[in-house]
Amino acid sequence: MERCDALARCSEEADRLTRRYGTPALAEARELVAGWMRDAGLDTRFDPIGNVVGRLAGDGERTLVLGSHLDTVVDAGRYDGALGVLAALSCVARLRERELPFALEVVGFADEEGVRFGTAFLGSAVVVGCFEKDWLGRVDRDGVTLGDAVRGWGGDPEALAAARRRPEELIGYVEVHIEQGPVLDDAGLPLGVVTGIAGQSRAGLTFSGRAGHAGTTPMGTRCDALAAAAGWIGAVEVEARAHDGLVATVGEIAVEPGAANVIPGRAAASLDVRHAEDGVREGAVRALREAALRMADARGVAVAWDEIQATKAVPCSPELTEELAAAVAGTGREAPRLTSGAGHDAAMMSAVTPIAMLFVRCAGGISHHPDESVREEDVAAALDATTAFIERLAKEPS
Amino acid sequence: MERCDALARCSEEADRLTRRYGTPALAEARELVAGWMRDAGLDTRFDPIGNVVGRLAGDGERTLVLGSHLDTVVDAGRYDGALGVLAALSCVARLRERELPFALEVVGFADEEGVRFGTAFLGSAVVVGCFEKDWLGRVDRDGVTLGDAVRGWGGDPEALAAARRRPEELIGYVEVHIEQGPVLDDAGLPLGVVTGIAGQSRAGLTFSGRAGHAGTTPMGTRCDALAAAAGWIGAVEVEARAHDGLVATVGEIAVEPGAANVIPGRAAASLDVRHAEDGVREGAVRALREAALRMADARGVAVAWDEIQATKAVPCSPELTEELAAAVAGTGREAPRLTSGAGHDAAMMSAVTPIAMLFVRCAGGISHHPDESVREEDVAAALDATTAFIERLAKEPS
Repeated sequence: MERCDALARCSEEADRLTRRYGTPALAEARELVAGWMRDAGLDTRFDPIGNVVGRLAGDGERTLVLGSHLDTVVDAGRYDGALGVLAALSCVARLRERELPFALEVVGFADEEGVRFGTAFLGSAVVVGCFEKDWLGRVDRDGVTLGDAVRGWGGDPEALAAARRRPEELIGYVEVHIEQGPVLDDAGLPLGVVTGIAGQSRAGLTFSGRAGHAGTTPMGTRCDALAAAAGWIGAVEVEARAHDGLVATVGEIAVEPGAANVIPGRAAASLDVRHAEDGVREGAVRALREAALRMADARGVAVAWDEIQATKAVPCSPELTEELAAAVAGTGREAPRLTSGAGHDAAMMSAVTPIAMLFVRCAGGISHHPDESVREEDVAAALDATTAFIERLAKEPS
Repeated sequence: MERCDALARCSEEADRLTRRYGTPALAEARELVAGWMRDAGLDTRFDPIGNVVGRLAGDGERTLVLGSHLDTVVDAGRYDGALGVLAALSCVARLRERELPFALEVVGFADEEGVRFGTAFLGSAVVVGCFEKDWLGRVDRDGVTLGDAVRGWGGDPEALAAARRRPEELIGYVEVHIEQGPVLDDAGLPLGVVTGIAGQSRAGLTFSGRAGHAGTTPMGTRCDALAAAAGWIGAVEVEARAHDGLVATVGEIAVEPGAANVIPGRAAASLDVRHAEDGVREGAVRALREAALRMADARGVAVAWDEIQATKAVPCSPELTEELAAAVAGTGREAPRLTSGAGHDAAMMSAVTPIAMLFVRCAGGISHHPDESVREEDVAAALDATTAFIERLAKEPS
């Protein structure tokens, strides 16, 4: 917990926590973590994108990786990402004197939020080998390219492809993370075992009607883009409530002309749909697309649907997840199984190795906000469970 | 029509028509109109707020006032306001050689739109004597006070109160105006006789829920401010459609935080409700207030209702309106009776004298836009009808 506080002092801004990829604030945080890794006896290095990696050699060739990310959103809390890196480090430190049949590595990923360059999961993308070279040309708001940012804090854009880890080197990847949702807090339980990371569909909708004078245009002759959008937002809510585990959100809406006495001629809205089963998510998206057309047609409004993203669900490894659940149970705690509605480095890591995730309760489900908070005893429970999990793996025939 | 084009060249901006109160563009337009008034033999002056007034004396003491406004919105069309001033001037010019039992005055009001100082109906407010002295302290976006703007183009802030017209001097006020709505165009008719100016209620609503992560917050635990607002917008549409002649509009909406992956914690929306009968409008506002509470309550969201304006309907004078309708009928044209959903100087003038209004068809109902257009033959019909109306009044026992 003290280390979480120390990391939170590494910020780009004096009065709030913001730590984006490649910034001096992230470099400072990375140095702190690297120092703690060396103190714990880990062989510590920075990989070509700037992830910090600490390794504890084992008797076998293969490696169990634990970690999370060190970057943050703007005006962040201090636990999203950082807690998982520090929890991993604490567990590995506890196991330092044990002879394990595999190596342990702790990774602090350098970019998961993607705030600076719009490159979410950049750190883990390099590790799994799906980094795309043209990303190096992306620029931040100050015109700095990602390539220059990589070089700027000691990375090497030329070496990114070679930095990928091969599946045969790895046993799995385990990530401890705050839940970022209210389920554990509502249930009064400290830990949750993640069964998978929800698939996600994102779309942008534009309803195009006809602007008109709010006083002189009879209701029957209107083509009100916002009325159509509002009807559709109602349909989004109904559709999501109709399917267990489905979440659907309209987080953005903007109208034009946008004056109190003018009928909106245009309304643009965002859609975010997530579910652990791709079929459920895809069915909901289809239904909402039809609902948008229906709501628009009924009002003489046109609607354009722009698919922005469709990411498949990532199941956690059933084997690792059973071990993790058994490890939690072995510490005497009840832990519900949860789907992660948020994306995590674990989803990216699943491209090269089996994954498991442990959620830690956070107060009120608040995250990406300075009020993010966790209880010390919950973190202790997570450390006990994760350590027990590694010990269970160590006992298995490999 | 040529004069409308000439006035449209008096603009603050090179590539579009914008003519706000007290600007050189409005001064130029006013000089043009004053020149045309003098050419028509009218005794012409600027009153203390800057309205231009041209007077044709008659045999009696009392005066029939005709007019509209010379200021415009930003990026305006060329007929809103200007057409009514020029139509009035043309009618009076036609009647110049006639001996009428009353004087005729043509007024070009200097501020109806209120764009520069937020002072709608400023020109007519001075004429009816409801100008409030503290308005002089209002500032435009450049920090110029209204008081300085009045002085800046030759007006006199000290003389405003004395500029009011007394009811006993006046016979009535008649305004020709483009409809600014689609009813006449849809009906294929050039003219409409206005029976009254709708009352208007304006409110600002703020739905306050709880922001949350779009992926990790189950539907059942959300307090989605936009979902509540959208449900309410649906209720606005239903309520308006349920009452003949009622119009209700949500023209503005904004959400916070306003990100695709964040449940809106706050949604602010505007409401504009209009009807010719105050009871219908007030009933609708009550129903929509209840609907807002209901939609909010159902989602654990709070709602604040901020009443911004409640303006009573202004009926046109039944006597003058009958004369106007008879005058139109006398020209062989059918003219439906309409409520004006927009406000006009006539509404203000009704405080001191009976009013009547004649609407002229505008293409597609488009107004407050460069595409605003009227047909020459429709304007000719309006001139014929208005001239016949004045002649009918002249024949009446006064």
